[in-house]
This record gives sequence, C-alpha cells and structure tokens, in this order.
Amino acid sequence: MIEPRILKGFRDSLPQPELRRKRSEQILQTVFESYGFAPIDTPVMEYTEVLLGKGGGETDKQVFRFSDNGGRDVSLRFDLTVPLARFVSLHREELTFPFKCYHIAKVFRGEKPQKGRYREFIQCDFDIIGTDNPLADFEILSIMCSALDALSPGGYKIHLSHRGLINELLASRGIYEKTTEVLRSIDKLYKIGAENVRAELSGAGLDSPAAEALMDFIKPVSGTYDEVLDRMAVLVGGRTESVRRLEQVCSLLKAAGLDKKVILDGSITRGLDYYTGVVFETFLDEMPSIGSVCSGGRYDNLTGLYSNRPQPGVGASVGIDRLLAASEDMEQEQVTQSDIVFFPEPVDAEPQACLNLAAGLRKSGIRCDFYLGNAKARDQYAYAQSKGARFAVTGAENGSFMLKDLTTRETAEIGSETAVETILKRLR
Amino acid sequence: MIEPRILKGFRDSLPQPELRRKRSEQILQTVFESYGFAPIDTPVMEYTEVLLGKGGGETDKQVFRFSDNGGRDVSLRFDLTVPLARFVSLHREELTFPFKCYHIAKVFRGEKPQKGRYREFIQCDFDIIGTDNPLADFEILSIMCSALDALSPGGYKIHLSHRGLINELLASRGIYEKTTEVLRSIDKLYKIGAENVRAELSGAGLDSPAAEALMDFIKPVSGTYDEVLDRMAVLVGGRTESVRRLEQVCSLLKAAGLDKKVILDGSITRGLDYYTGVVFETFLDEMPSIGSVCSGGRYDNLTGLYSNRPQPGVGASVGIDRLLAASEDMEQEQVTQSDIVFFPEPVDAEPQACLNLAAGLRKSGIRCDFYLGNAKARDQYAYAQSKGARFAVTGAENGSFMLKDLTTRETAEIGSETAVETILKRLR
Repeated sequence: MIEPRILKGFRDSLPQPELRRKRSEQILQTVFESYGFAPIDTPVMEYTEVLLGKGGGETDKQVFRFSDNGGRDVSLRFDLTVPLARFVSLHREELTFPFKCYHIAKVFRGEKPQKGRYREFIQCDFDIIGTDNPLADFEILSIMCSALDALSPGGYKIHLSHRGLINELLASRGIYEKTTEVLRSIDKLYKIGAENVRAELSGAGLDSPAAEALMDFIKPVSGTYDEVLDRMAVLVGGRTESVRRLEQVCSLLKAAGLDKKVILDGSITRGLDYYTGVVFETFLDEMPSIGSVCSGGRYDNLTGLYSNRPQPGVGASVGIDRLLAASEDMEQEQVTQSDIVFFPEPVDAEPQACLNLAAGLRKSGIRCDFYLGNAKARDQYAYAQSKGARFAVTGAENGSFMLKDLTTRETAEIGSETAVETILKRLR
Repeated sequence: MIEPRILKGFRDSLPQPELRRKRSEQILQTVFESYGFAPIDTPVMEYTEVLLGKGGGETDKQVFRFSDNGGRDVSLRFDLTVPLARFVSLHREELTFPFKCYHIAKVFRGEKPQKGRYREFIQCDFDIIGTDNPLADFEILSIMCSALDALSPGGYKIHLSHRGLINELLASRGIYEKTTEVLRSIDKLYKIGAENVRAELSGAGLDSPAAEALMDFIKPVSGTYDEVLDRMAVLVGGRTESVRRLEQVCSLLKAAGLDKKVILDGSITRGLDYYTGVVFETFLDEMPSIGSVCSGGRYDNLTGLYSNRPQPGVGASVGIDRLLAASEDMEQEQVTQSDIVFFPEPVDAEPQACLNLAAGLRKSGIRCDFYLGNAKARDQYAYAQSKGARFAVTGAENGSFMLKDLTTRETAEIGSETAVETILKRLR
C-alpha cells in the first residue's frame, strides 16, 4: 500500500472551497468579457530560456526546472506575465491590437511554504497590449472596480501613483542614480514602516533634504485629485509628464464616478522592474493586513526580450486566493451543492416518477441530487445536510411525492401534475 | 533576443478557441452541478510513487518525471483518475459518501505528438464513489446525455456493455485464462476490423467455437433492450450477474426516455484494467472517425492502492478537445468577443457620455469595448470586425451618440436619455 500524501506546499481543493473559487472565477470572467477582454492560455511548461531569459534573478532559484525526456531544459511557469510577453511576440500577426486579454491559470514557485503561501497557486491577470493611451490605464482601473464590486469582499481602496514621479523628484534635485534602491525601499513602506524607510534612504547615501522630500511625498494625504496632484507637482518640480498622465487618468476616473474608490498615494511604487508608468495596489477596508488584493501598472516594453518592436501595455493581477481567504474569514456561509435531494426507492421499484420530476426541475436550473447510498434515514439526512439541500423528496403512492422541508422539518404531499411548479414556488 | 518558441507537443490557446473552450467548460459545469456534483482540484505535481504506484506500465515512459529542488522524486499528473483515488483515500473522513464530483484540469503525457494529440491537454472527469447502486451507473449515463445534448455536437450514440459479459461467456466454455488478451483484442475492433480481431483470438489460442461465439457476441445488433439482452444471455450462458445489472440499468434508461441515445454493444470493453462493471463509449453520428468523445465505466477498487477499504465507483471522461475539434469542423461561426465597440474621442475631450453609456449597457450584460488605438477609421473598423461587434458607437454633440450597424453599415443618431434602451432593443 502507498501512503496517499501530497507534496509540501501543494494542496487539494475540496468541494466547498473549489465551488467558491469557481464562482469567483466565473464572476471575474463575466466582468472581463463585459469590457471586451478575451481569454488566452499558455502551456504550464516552457523552455527555461524563454521563461528565465538571461536569468540570474531571485526568481530563478524558485523555479521548478528539469530536463524532459528529450533532454530539453524546461521549467514550469512562475507567473503569467512572462508567458504573456512570449505569447504576444509569437502570435503578433494573428492578434488584433490593442490586444485586450485575460488569463486565469496555475503558476509554480518553489518558495518556502508558509501560511497563505503555496508552491502552486492561481494567478488571474488582465492586460491591454499595444497602446500608451491613458484611456487604457483608466480602463484597467475601471475593471478592477467592477471586479471588486462584483466579488464584494466589502469596501476597498485602490491606491494609484506613477512610477516616474520618484524619478522626477530625484532628478529635480540632480540625483540620477540609486533610483532602483529608492523605489525598492519605498515599496516596503507598509511592511517596515516610515522610520525604517527613512533609515534605508540615508543608508543608500541620499542627502537629508532629498530624503525628507521623499518622505513627504510618500506620506498619506487626503484631498481632491486636484489638491493632491498640485502637492505632488510641487514636490517633483512642476507639472511633469508623470503628473500630467495622472491628471488625465484622474479626470477619467472622476467622470466615471470612481474617485471615491481610487485614491492617489505617492508611496505606491511596485517592486518589479518592468513597470514604467502608472502603478496601483488595492487594499480591503476591513482587512488591510492581508496586503494588496489587486495590483498592476503600465510597462513600456515587456516584449523586448522576444521582439525588436516594443509593445507598451498596462495590466493588473487579481489575488483570487487572498480574496477567497478574506471572504471565508468574513462570511462562513455554506456554498450549497444541491437544492433537492431525492431519496429514491430501491432500484427495482422503477423510480420513474422521481426521475421525471428531477429532469423537469433541472430544466429550471434546480440542482437535483439522488442519494445513492444505503436506506438508513440517518445517513440520508446527513447526506442532504452536507450538500446544503433545502428539500428532500421521496416518491409516494399514485405517482405523487412527499416533500420535506429540511429547515422546518415540515412534510407535504404534492401531486405529480403540479410538482415542478410547487417546488419552484417554495424554493423562491 | 530570445526566440519566442514553445515546446513540441504543447500549444497556446488564442482568444477564439479559448472562448469556445471556456463556454464548453461552463456548460459542462452547469450540467454536473444540476445533478449535485461538486468540483474538486488536485496538484499538477505529485510524488512519483503516488502517481505511478509500483510502476512498470506503458504509462511510466510517458510521464514527465524529475527531482524537485528538495530532491524529491516528483511527476506531473498524466490523468485525473489516479489523483482522484489518492484524493478520496486522503480525505475520506472529510467527504460525504456516496461522493459525487467532477474535475476539469490539465494532464501531461510525453507521447509522440501527432495530429490531435498533445503533451498537455485537458481532461474532464465526473465520478460517483462509494456505491455499487445501479442507479449510479444510470446517473453517469444520464449526465453524459445531458452534457452532450447541451454541447450539441449533433447526434450521438452511447454504446453500453458490461465488462463481466466476456468473462462469463468464456467461463461458460470452461475458459478462465487469457481474458485480458481477449478484452484487449476486442477493444481494437473499430480500429483493426473484425477479421483481424478473429485472427488475434485464434492467435491467443482460443478454440474455434469460443472464438466464433465471441465474434457473434461483439457484432452490431439492433433491437429493443429486451431483445438484445435475451441474445446476450444465450451467448454468455444465462441471466448472469452482468446481464441482470445491464437489465436494471436499461430499465432505468427506458424510464428516463434515454433508450434512443444509449444502445447495447457487446464489443465495448475499454482497454483499461481497472474497469469491472458497466463500460461505455460515445460516438458522434456525423464524425464516428474521431473516436469516442465520452467514455467510462464502473470500477470496484480504484482506491485499493492507497487504502485497505475498497471503494467502488463509476465515472466517465468527456473528451473536450475532441468535441471542440468536431464542432469547429461542423460550424465555423465566429465566437464574438464584444457586442459594441466605442470609438472614443481623444482623451482630453472627456468621453464621459460614452463611459456612462457603456457602464449602463454592461449592467444589462452587453459587452462594451473601447477601441484604444490610433484614430484611423480603417483600423477602428478592422478592430470592431475582429471582435465580432454588432455596433460601433461614437459620441456626438449635445451628449447624443452616433450608432453604426456594422452589418448593414447604417448610421443613426440616438439621444442620450434613451440610448441604453434603443441599443438593447436593436441588439435583440
């Protein structure tokens, strides 16, 4: 006998969480498609060279990499961004640009497993490739609002900034180096706190006035878009290109009534190197501690590794697992798997009436489940309860049915002619 | 620069086929859930020992197997049946039996790639574990009918038999060995033809009367369930256990009106060793040559490798890729990605009216897509056409809109107050 164990950092998805996850994915798909975004998929496994490029980064150590049976150096995808860049470069002639797409799929990272971190998890990305239009930045933010409203994990705020602002602030003070270190330090603000960021900035060799201007820039401020943008403009040395881009995006957000959901926040920089324009993260009002549940930004040249023709783009990634974990903490409601459980007679009694009733109800979208175990009443009801069913049905004499309400325990006999209608009415 | 290539035997899914696939999956999920089946998922990667057991079979050579970063011997799953057995054994105490579940996921086999065969493909399995009830056999067949009706690939026939019949036929003639070879030969009937099967049977050392009885048993016959069952009973030596089980299942199929869709066919044996009861395959009336699009059967002890307590079950697998390939051959209709494409004004014109109209339409389920490329009319219309949109909308003066029907090329001006209604009416 072999022990039925699974690998560390991996997990099964049981019916309840899997149903929740499928519901969330379905909601997201409907939102993405309502904006004209189309789904794509790529292989789980690719040439290592394609996924890691020149390599050498932190990611490389976490990749599941091996030789396949033909001796090829292959790896499992560790995100959906690199495969998207490869996909767009390979299929450029078959796609219509600007290309709007979404991709929901598993990715793999050999990280040290810890609470909420797995070696196999689902990513959900959506992107617009092939345009630098500010309307595209706005559209991604707009979809984020629609998606979070539809998934309704309670209130949320999208924190918006522009990657160029910090560069401009530093450049206005004659500083043209160290911007990567500065961005990485600022990115850690929520994790390590303001004092540690300040310490890291002077550790990086920034003079005190520059560090103070940065600390001023990244501190939380309230006010209208115009007020915050004016303040940003002063700190970065005028109405720079980045400030003007944010102005355009904010004006669209205001026109669409999204200015209560998207706030400007100079501390948002995103750690990843490829972002070059707007950047954003999303925090739940009731659970800020779980971190950003939807993040992204604009990148100028994601496809540069595979193509000579740069393709600007903008996109975001929804943290489905985090959102599901949050909604499980907030509402413990059972996801029902069946509406009605039939307790059929022994098979030789020819349960034709029950079969016909179930077929009729299924046509109206009612989930009808036949209990197929033994005939003990206790097991039957335990089954119905575990599936979250509202009613149990058994066939009675003369083709009529006994309908038992599993909440109130009341039983009623219903005639076969009106059975579908009666049950539909009671379920509503 | 790195060449954006993908591995042999793997493929990307572009928007059109991916949309079709997602639609099919959604249809299947709705059907499965209408019968009270719940989704599960398992890891793509497992311990090799868990997936291959004692190993040594043909499958082993096709498995993607490697050492992970921690030196563990791991493999990618090559089907969903083995993971299901492992899942049920591991979570036995958390599940309610009889356990009804479905699983739609990617599997991996390092086979020689050929037309229609890939190294990464999607399987869609549904199973009832923990009962030997004939109603469970019937329910799986019933779901197959509902699924194929809903996916509507044209007409189809499910061919049903019982694995025990051949054993019983041989036993009635005193033959208790060679049954595995006989079953494998018969399984190849559609591929190699009757004469070659006959040759293989005598090659296996079967005497001529036994071989002739088998050839008689597996030849296509028509007639009512009762007629065919009577004929089978004569050949296998009476109303055996297998004949009685088929009788029960057929009686349920007839009661449910499915006797036109499910026919008895003694030649169905399924190659796989683990089947022990009813077995079935499904062929499309218009494309029998693509082979079975939905197959399965009853197994008595799938969990035996991981558990001392045997769990009987019955299940089937839908060949989504084959069905999609068939439906692509039968109807070349474009799957639309957008209903309406907005050609917005330059961003500084504040396209508030268009944004509001799109938001209103999306609430009614209309997919509204903003064209975000350059302002050339040719590119705009090419984009709208590639997305399959019915209408193009631009903002006009006074907040009204210009609505262009992309089929008839007619243009109408519509007022902002009634715009949502007008467009909804025209789309229906």
